[in-house]
Amino acid sequence: MAEVRVFAGSAGQRFAQKMCADLGVPLSPAEISRFANDCLQAQLMENCRERDVYLVQPIITPTQENLMELLLMIDAAKGASAQRITAVIPHFAYARSDKKDAPRISIGGRLVADLLETAGAGRILTMTLHAPQVHAFFRVPTDQLNALRELASHFGANDLSKTTVVSPDLGNAKPASAFAKMLGVPVAAAAKERFNDNRVEITSLIGDVGGRDIIVLDDEVAGGSTIAALLDLLREHGARSVRIACTHGIFAGDALYRIAADPDVVEIVTTDTVPTTELVAHDKLTVISVASAFAEAVRRIHSGESVSALFDPTHV
Amino acid sequence: MAEVRVFAGSAGQRFAQKMCADLGVPLSPAEISRFANDCLQAQLMENCRERDVYLVQPIITPTQENLMELLLMIDAAKGASAQRITAVIPHFAYARSDKKDAPRISIGGRLVADLLETAGAGRILTMTLHAPQVHAFFRVPTDQLNALRELASHFGANDLSKTTVVSPDLGNAKPASAFAKMLGVPVAAAAKERFNDNRVEITSLIGDVGGRDIIVLDDEVAGGSTIAALLDLLREHGARSVRIACTHGIFAGDALYRIAADPDVVEIVTTDTVPTTELVAHDKLTVISVASAFAEAVRRIHSGESVSALFDPTHV
Amino acid sequence: MAEVRVFAGSAGQRFAQKMCADLGVPLSPAEISRFANDCLQAQLMENCRERDVYLVQPIITPTQENLMELLLMIDAAKGASAQRITAVIPHFAYARSDKKDAPRISIGGRLVADLLETAGAGRILTMTLHAPQVHAFFRVPTDQLNALRELASHFGANDLSKTTVVSPDLGNAKPASAFAKMLGVPVAAAAKERFNDNRVEITSLIGDVGGRDIIVLDDEVAGGSTIAALLDLLREHGARSVRIACTHGIFAGDALYRIAADPDVVEIVTTDTVPTTELVAHDKLTVISVASAFAEAVRRIHSGESVSALFDPTHV
Amino acid sequence: MAEVRVFAGSAGQRFAQKMCADLGVPLSPAEISRFANDCLQAQLMENCRERDVYLVQPIITPTQENLMELLLMIDAAKGASAQRITAVIPHFAYARSDKKDAPRISIGGRLVADLLETAGAGRILTMTLHAPQVHAFFRVPTDQLNALRELASHFGANDLSKTTVVSPDLGNAKPASAFAKMLGVPVAAAAKERFNDNRVEITSLIGDVGGRDIIVLDDEVAGGSTIAALLDLLREHGARSVRIACTHGIFAGDALYRIAADPDVVEIVTTDTVPTTELVAHDKLTVISVASAFAEAVRRIHSGESVSALFDPTHV
Amino acid sequence: MAEVRVFAGSAGQRFAQKMCADLGVPLSPAEISRFANDCLQAQLMENCRERDVYLVQPIITPTQENLMELLLMIDAAKGASAQRITAVIPHFAYARSDKKDAPRISIGGRLVADLLETAGAGRILTMTLHAPQVHAFFRVPTDQLNALRELASHFGANDLSKTTVVSPDLGNAKPASAFAKMLGVPVAAAAKERFNDNRVEITSLIGDVGGRDIIVLDDEVAGGSTIAALLDLLREHGARSVRIACTHGIFAGDALYRIAADPDVVEIVTTDTVPTTELVAHDKLTVISVASAFAEAVRRIHSGESVSALFDPTHV
Amino acid sequence: MAEVRVFAGSAGQRFAQKMCADLGVPLSPAEISRFANDCLQAQLMENCRERDVYLVQPIITPTQENLMELLLMIDAAKGASAQRITAVIPHFAYARSDKKDAPRISIGGRLVADLLETAGAGRILTMTLHAPQVHAFFRVPTDQLNALRELASHFGANDLSKTTVVSPDLGNAKPASAFAKMLGVPVAAAAKERFNDNRVEITSLIGDVGGRDIIVLDDEVAGGSTIAALLDLLREHGARSVRIACTHGIFAGDALYRIAADPDVVEIVTTDTVPTTELVAHDKLTVISVASAFAEAVRRIHSGESVSALFDPTHV
Repeated sequence: MAEVRVFAGSAGQRFAQKMCADLGVPLSPAEISRFANDCLQAQLMENCRERDVYLVQPIITPTQENLMELLLMIDAAKGASAQRITAVIPHFAYARSDKKDAPRISIGGRLVADLLETAGAGRILTMTLHAPQVHAFFRVPTDQLNALRELASHFGANDLSKTTVVSPDLGNAKPASAFAKMLGVPVAAAAKERFNDNRVEITSLIGDVGGRDIIVLDDEVAGGSTIAALLDLLREHGARSVRIACTHGIFAGDALYRIAADPDVVEIVTTDTVPTTELVAHDKLTVISVASAFAEAVRRIHSGESVSALFDPTHV
Repeated sequence: MAEVRVFAGSAGQRFAQKMCADLGVPLSPAEISRFANDCLQAQLMENCRERDVYLVQPIITPTQENLMELLLMIDAAKGASAQRITAVIPHFAYARSDKKDAPRISIGGRLVADLLETAGAGRILTMTLHAPQVHAFFRVPTDQLNALRELASHFGANDLSKTTVVSPDLGNAKPASAFAKMLGVPVAAAAKERFNDNRVEITSLIGDVGGRDIIVLDDEVAGGSTIAALLDLLREHGARSVRIACTHGIFAGDALYRIAADPDVVEIVTTDTVPTTELVAHDKLTVISVASAFAEAVRRIHSGESVSALFDPTHV
Repeated sequence: MAEVRVFAGSAGQRFAQKMCADLGVPLSPAEISRFANDCLQAQLMENCRERDVYLVQPIITPTQENLMELLLMIDAAKGASAQRITAVIPHFAYARSDKKDAPRISIGGRLVADLLETAGAGRILTMTLHAPQVHAFFRVPTDQLNALRELASHFGANDLSKTTVVSPDLGNAKPASAFAKMLGVPVAAAAKERFNDNRVEITSLIGDVGGRDIIVLDDEVAGGSTIAALLDLLREHGARSVRIACTHGIFAGDALYRIAADPDVVEIVTTDTVPTTELVAHDKLTVISVASAFAEAVRRIHSGESVSALFDPTHV
Repeated sequence: MAEVRVFAGSAGQRFAQKMCADLGVPLSPAEISRFANDCLQAQLMENCRERDVYLVQPIITPTQENLMELLLMIDAAKGASAQRITAVIPHFAYARSDKKDAPRISIGGRLVADLLETAGAGRILTMTLHAPQVHAFFRVPTDQLNALRELASHFGANDLSKTTVVSPDLGNAKPASAFAKMLGVPVAAAAKERFNDNRVEITSLIGDVGGRDIIVLDDEVAGGSTIAALLDLLREHGARSVRIACTHGIFAGDALYRIAADPDVVEIVTTDTVPTTELVAHDKLTVISVASAFAEAVRRIHSGESVSALFDPTHV
Repeated sequence: MAEVRVFAGSAGQRFAQKMCADLGVPLSPAEISRFANDCLQAQLMENCRERDVYLVQPIITPTQENLMELLLMIDAAKGASAQRITAVIPHFAYARSDKKDAPRISIGGRLVADLLETAGAGRILTMTLHAPQVHAFFRVPTDQLNALRELASHFGANDLSKTTVVSPDLGNAKPASAFAKMLGVPVAAAAKERFNDNRVEITSLIGDVGGRDIIVLDDEVAGGSTIAALLDLLREHGARSVRIACTHGIFAGDALYRIAADPDVVEIVTTDTVPTTELVAHDKLTVISVASAFAEAVRRIHSGESVSALFDPTHV
Repeated sequence: MAEVRVFAGSAGQRFAQKMCADLGVPLSPAEISRFANDCLQAQLMENCRERDVYLVQPIITPTQENLMELLLMIDAAKGASAQRITAVIPHFAYARSDKKDAPRISIGGRLVADLLETAGAGRILTMTLHAPQVHAFFRVPTDQLNALRELASHFGANDLSKTTVVSPDLGNAKPASAFAKMLGVPVAAAAKERFNDNRVEITSLIGDVGGRDIIVLDDEVAGGSTIAALLDLLREHGARSVRIACTHGIFAGDALYRIAADPDVVEIVTTDTVPTTELVAHDKLTVISVASAFAEAVRRIHSGESVSALFDPTHV
């Protein structure tokens, strides 16, 4: 089969380097240049004719710049006769815009899915989309990984005898359930209602948290308002300690510092799908790399092995 | 602007007649015939050249037959030079299949959205899709109505001083909230986890239901397992009486009878988006027509008035 | 090249098993499930990433169910990153709906061809479409097999010295010509006019049938009205005996029994493209399998050998 | 509604002038120019922004030139913001290439249908396609006229008491049937088999022609081999006189003269769908204009009246 | 016809206000919001169902932000059932990326044209694209205005008896020719070769400039390197004074100040297609509004009048 | 990888034979036939299932015939399950029609690019398009070769000590620059303005040509008006001798003889991209084959090697 060729956009360099190290292939250079009028241009610096091309770029702040870079790299790869183009998007921020909850509003998640296809992406590899339905926004084959194994393996080292996993969102509690099962501990969930992007109310807790060591599992932490409200609730219910685990650590503004400042919070664990997270140093913060999981998925995609088997038996 | 022309498939006849009575336009006849080899064929019996054509058909049991009828009617209208073709789908059953929760599984909701577009539908008019993200599965403009006003107006006649609205699904509690606000009563919600299409566990209740007259609000009742589990829980928590309100009354098998047999259940209220519901007679069952709401939406679509304004101010 | 993977829908199980036995590959399991609201869902139970996938399903009664199953299986295979998806449709019933012979009527044959492409079919493998032009309804590469060799080999065992092949439809007499040439016997044809799906008039016979052993060759027998009219005519013209050979034995209702009840009819020979035929037992009925021909076509498609060469030199 | 704007390509000038005279709108000028390297370029010389544009061009010898002119005019109209573009194709020669009757052969009819859509045609208006299935090759709304009324009205002036209509092709005898019904005379048909584009065998006649005045009705006469063979057969069967009626009088090479030289042939009647026919003068040749029928269809398309009603009650 | 509705993105507010004042329609509000994860969302605050919608947004610094805003506004308008969506792009920066002058490089101009179509733009209204071929990158109808009349009218007030128009780019000297003809003065041109986005060599001058008052006409001034090189050359050849006229005044970095600092430069004239230009104050800078020309084009597009007639007789 | 299969249209036979000799693969036969009604039909006479198919056809006089042949061959190859279809177009005449320089005019270059894609071309291989932007008209991967190496190697044999390369078009002087660099000689350029396809004015020369041996380098010579004007200018400026080098030698009408009749013209060198050139014999004409370059490109495309590397380091 065709050779693998991996390129990365500005936001995906470090992640792609780790993937490539794991895959044992070099990261091929891509040059992003900027015209005097602020247009971007992408050039792939290695032959990709008839290659199995992977373009690594998280769609994350500066979101529009990173998205356009990715679209231009796809265009360049298509024009250069790549055999297959897989957009590797560790974090897909536009998944947040997934419904029409006001009149005459854009649905960015679906739009961006269509733009990626128009540019020439033939496949998407991503991790934990904000809602499971967003998977179906993509018309090209899409593989959605999750970080539960990596996160579970991190916490597995601790004494978990008093631990409970808490999902901040009852409506999306399946991953927390699966995660708790991996750790062999009980699960609880909070009832959350989101009023807008920034204001969240958490009204109630289902399950016992009094005197427990809590691991909150969320798909992403952006502004931190959900976590803040949940911490108050956990405190009220007498939780003993709190660890935060999230796949996508966006931590907009000073969100990380605000959460870490809470004395109950013992540890904040996230992955490297959002590259900026790695630039932040904080005692309580642990960043686990999921680049190996992506590398393994690429290996399987390339060789035609099952990717879903990676996540057996829960298939969350 | 072009004249309105309304046709209906086998499952949409009664609903379309009511819509047409409300609109003051005749329901044009469509003939569905069946070849000896079980293929279907649709013929529209009125000129629809340059007309603003509405094809009314709920996608409901027998689902495949009804879907194919609709696709063929769209094909016939397109070939007959309709100016615009709106598929009016009071209930869109395939919305249930909206994610990839197992490996190598179909996502029927997205597939059917694409099939409707391929056949030639230029617009969709429907009511309360199972998940809000399903809206974005459609690439053609889509108007999604809801039945909250109609349901609220039904219950508004009662003494509501002891009433609480209960959402059986915390993850989708927004409509119940809006509904409670319309009635001026408090809201509660149950925490539900669905294991597969038929088995549901309801673990907990958020909000007070003891001694209250409950109105359960759900988008649809199909097999009835969610409602059965919820009734148990409400009983445990001392609810005084229960009314069930659901937009789409599918009532598969004997679901209606099983629910109605519960002595706590005082009334079951649904709408006529699912036509078979009207064929069932039961003391406790009330079927409210939403055909007028669809007729009003058609009138606004046709004359270019805002449809979302119909639902102001909540925009649920 | 990529491995072959064969799945079958509900109507294609037996046919696919025979194909797989011939190909020497296992038939991979597919699970079709039904939601409480009568929506279908397809799951492919073997990895098909980068596989050369064949989905076997005749489009035949219950036609809408079988068609939707096939569309959902294609959707599942596409989402599962199949390298190429071939819809194997031994009988394609919708070919009957191929023209606009009344105002504002659907053309189901073309519509279904487009739906299959939208779902993700990249290639079609089928047998003897009702009219040769229907081939061009498909925009994806399409291989159309025929059963003439198999049928000829069946009759070749008999004494054919007094045999004449009769085409019931002069307008489509080419296959009968080719078939007669294979058997080394003369050909005759009847002039038929179809008024609608059920009423047919056969006005005249071209060629000599008096005292001959007739083999009627038709592409399909559905309601049986064509055959009934032809039998009368053959009797009038003094035919000695009649055998019926048809590729697609649909035999709607009691068509098989009505034909078989005719004392002149010695034998009815068909193939297994329509699975229900095999469930019918009748002394006069012989069902020949064409699964091997499909298996050989799959083998050639997979290995890049010519499929048309299978039918040399007649290329009917 | 938008104003009508009619342009014509090189081959459609005279036909379009007649249409425009009938419609009471001017024929707008279009300039077709040729680069030194033999590329064509089309310029529409009247504003067609938001107009209802009709581009008149038969696809007939020189076929490739005329087709490309039409595609370029469509492109120009699209770029000039036409509201709707209808390709008016009185004769669509590529309908002859409608099936795959040899391996690896092009199907020009379907290809050209797709090219017209790609260029931007939103609707097709044409007359009597060679096979009824070709209608479904077009994905855009297509209106197919026929010339039976015009031809019948021409012959209606004669004494028809001894007249029989003969179809040269039993497989496509419906139009002859309808035509005979219009004239109130009986119908007969010949059994024809085509070996290739130029060689045809006519084996038999169904119906009585001895001593009758024959009107042969065919959709088109190109090389004339079908007619030549039929004339021999009619002579053998004792026909008294023969008139030829055909919609599309292509008369390739000296076909017209060869047919007219037959002493039994009294008259050859055709229409002006093929413009070159009008350039030929022959005593026996009558050319009837169908430009009025096209003008009436344009009027109905433009004003949203039924076009099929024009052909009631036969809908052939 | 449908009512006009005008919305503007962040970069198009002022320009759209001027257009709307000219058109006599209100500028409808659009809200662009930003999620915590830096995704954008657009909401149109007026009903645009069945409206003729114009979305005004120059694609200019910050280019990616402004482009994404426009795409999201188009998506919102499409979802809101706009009858027609025209993207009004006073300056289209991505036109600079129009060829593949290095291996494996993106062609942003074509890509963005395709993205706009995917989002739902049905028409483009823009001004002076960097190369005339870029017009053909758009598959939707595109109207390209120019500012020559406005610029000519500005200079027409001066004594032009000693004036010569100079094109800095011989390969694109047609607009300068037309401009000189409008002013009734001679034209000259410089021979320029561009090495990359920032380095330009101007080797020679064709035509007489000694002792003349020069008006340099360029489509855009971005980094200013072309103008700088041209000023040197003009000085060498003895030009008496220099005025700079350009349609798109991008003036990246301190380009404006560097040019204005040249003592030979008397005046710099540009238009308001690039909104930031208006924020810059400099004695030598004159900004002419072309919003009226866009308003007039919108008026003509809306009412179906010719837009090209606006530029008669030169059609540059 | 799949086997290479090469076919050629009528105009590409000789070129394809040379390519095939170079590649060491046989030229597979294709049969182009013509119906009595002047429709074309293409049949590929070798199996091309799963083959890497190359269809060689210059788009040159008779342009419409050759274009349609190519489209039909592509259609045939697609229907025959070719794995990949590359249209090899040594000269693409429609590149001349690349902009909208008059109202309501077709842009043939973009239209034909779209038609090729619709027919099924998956890749284009061509040489020196008339403008570099035309590359972006194609949405499928396109490789654009040039003939500079071949032309340079031809002239390299001469004494070049007094030689200057002259570009007749300053606006497109890059190739002449690169060519001069290859030969190690200086470059000059003429300033040309084209009024229409046939009238050209050349006003001025940049660079020294007095007493020099000139090699004029142009992309194509069609009507010859540019060269005629340039020859006058070179004579005026005292050039010693002139050689003409052009990639595409179209030589419409008697253009070749008119140019060759000029006593200053020593030699006219062109390539075989335009097949008719080879049929012309003239003492001063040299035709260099670029079939090897195309063969090498095919070899690289087939084996996944870089094609741009062929042209390193200038990438013109």
